Amino acid sequence: MRLRNVKDISCLDSSPYIINEPYKFKGNYRCIFDNSKPIHIEIGMGKGKFIIEMALNNPDINFIGIEKFASVMVRAIQKIGDKEIPNLRLILMDAMEIDTVFDHEINMIYLNFSDPWPKAKHARRRLTSPLFLSKYDMIFKGDCNIIMKTDNEGLYSYSIDTLSEYGYFLTEISMKQFSLSEDNVTTEYEDKFIKLGKPIYKVIAIKCK
Amino acid sequence: MRLRNVKDISCLDSSPYIINEPYKFKGNYRCIFDNSKPIHIEIGMGKGKFIIEMALNNPDINFIGIEKFASVMVRAIQKIGDKEIPNLRLILMDAMEIDTVFDHEINMIYLNFSDPWPKAKHARRRLTSPLFLSKYDMIFKGDCNIIMKTDNEGLYSYSIDTLSEYGYFLTEISMKQFSLSEDNVTTEYEDKFIKLGKPIYKVIAIKCK
Repeated sequence: MRLRNVKDISCLDSSPYIINEPYKFKGNYRCIFDNSKPIHIEIGMGKGKFIIEMALNNPDINFIGIEKFASVMVRAIQKIGDKEIPNLRLILMDAMEIDTVFDHEINMIYLNFSDPWPKAKHARRRLTSPLFLSKYDMIFKGDCNIIMKTDNEGLYSYSIDTLSEYGYFLTEISMKQFSLSEDNVTTEYEDKFIKLGKPIYKVIAIKCK
Repeated sequence: MRLRNVKDISCLDSSPYIINEPYKFKGNYRCIFDNSKPIHIEIGMGKGKFIIEMALNNPDINFIGIEKFASVMVRAIQKIGDKEIPNLRLILMDAMEIDTVFDHEINMIYLNFSDPWPKAKHARRRLTSPLFLSKYDMIFKGDCNIIMKTDNEGLYSYSIDTLSEYGYFLTEISMKQFSLSEDNVTTEYEDKFIKLGKPIYKVIAIKCK
């Protein structure tokens, strides 16, 4: 590992945005924000453009970004820089552990350009697999709300099937060519696809209790 | 009144789809359907194309269509004809009474091409006025979910403002020219606008508890 990376990653420990030992707050995430506003999470936040902009644009919602790779999380911390964003926190963990960290306290999950895991033998790792949907059941507070965007047609079709079969009602299924000027909070990936003129698939899914 | 209309309207009393004295079921609408599936309502269903198709396409959701005018409701009953749609019921009433009829038991409200009431002095009659949003608070079971479509730019802008100010999170705000071939359950009005190539505005709003 290069020294630069080691130095960078050390900033994670001292960042007030990172929640260390997140399982300790299971069921009590409202205490972290010191309010009872809804909590939205992004699983696989990458370099954090989407979740940071969402938090800045929506002060009445608390946001938690989740990312597996420290080297990527560092970029999000750098992006936040000196900004004060009281309604934002970040967690470094594998999404597979999500139900050990949250307990019926999440209102919305964003899945942006998730790994499509194209091989059939890896299907359960897709963030809309029945395995993950069963984990989400354990973390949603009321209705289950998922907003998904992807450039991957395979993941899009798979997700429409799994979400429908799992009892989600799909309020929006669309394939669209966005323009960068549109009022649409984007991820780094998304900007790249928009510039290339590639279509982006979007699904809004709600499972009512 | 023409005799034909009088005769037509009499069919409402005998239709198994019409809920007479709907306030008697307040808090107990699940009993009408004899199951605990989510209940979605459309306020201002008109001739019923949207709610009938939605009910046929989504057997795991119960649908209730609400319409103020008996002469229009008759057209919906005629449209149902001999079909058996166990997850559909209809109520003839003014939307203003909605909170006297339902009590924390609705999961989704559809507002399709509602009357825009363009004059400022009629603003409270718009179905996304703060008055109506406060009524909806009393009928939603969990999270408040509203899906709105309109061809009216004034109503669209007004609704974005009122919904945001009332604590709704807008998961989808779009202006689109649909084509009739798209996988999109439409109303009679919508088909007309699509044929004319007019854009349709759509808002999906969620208020989490």
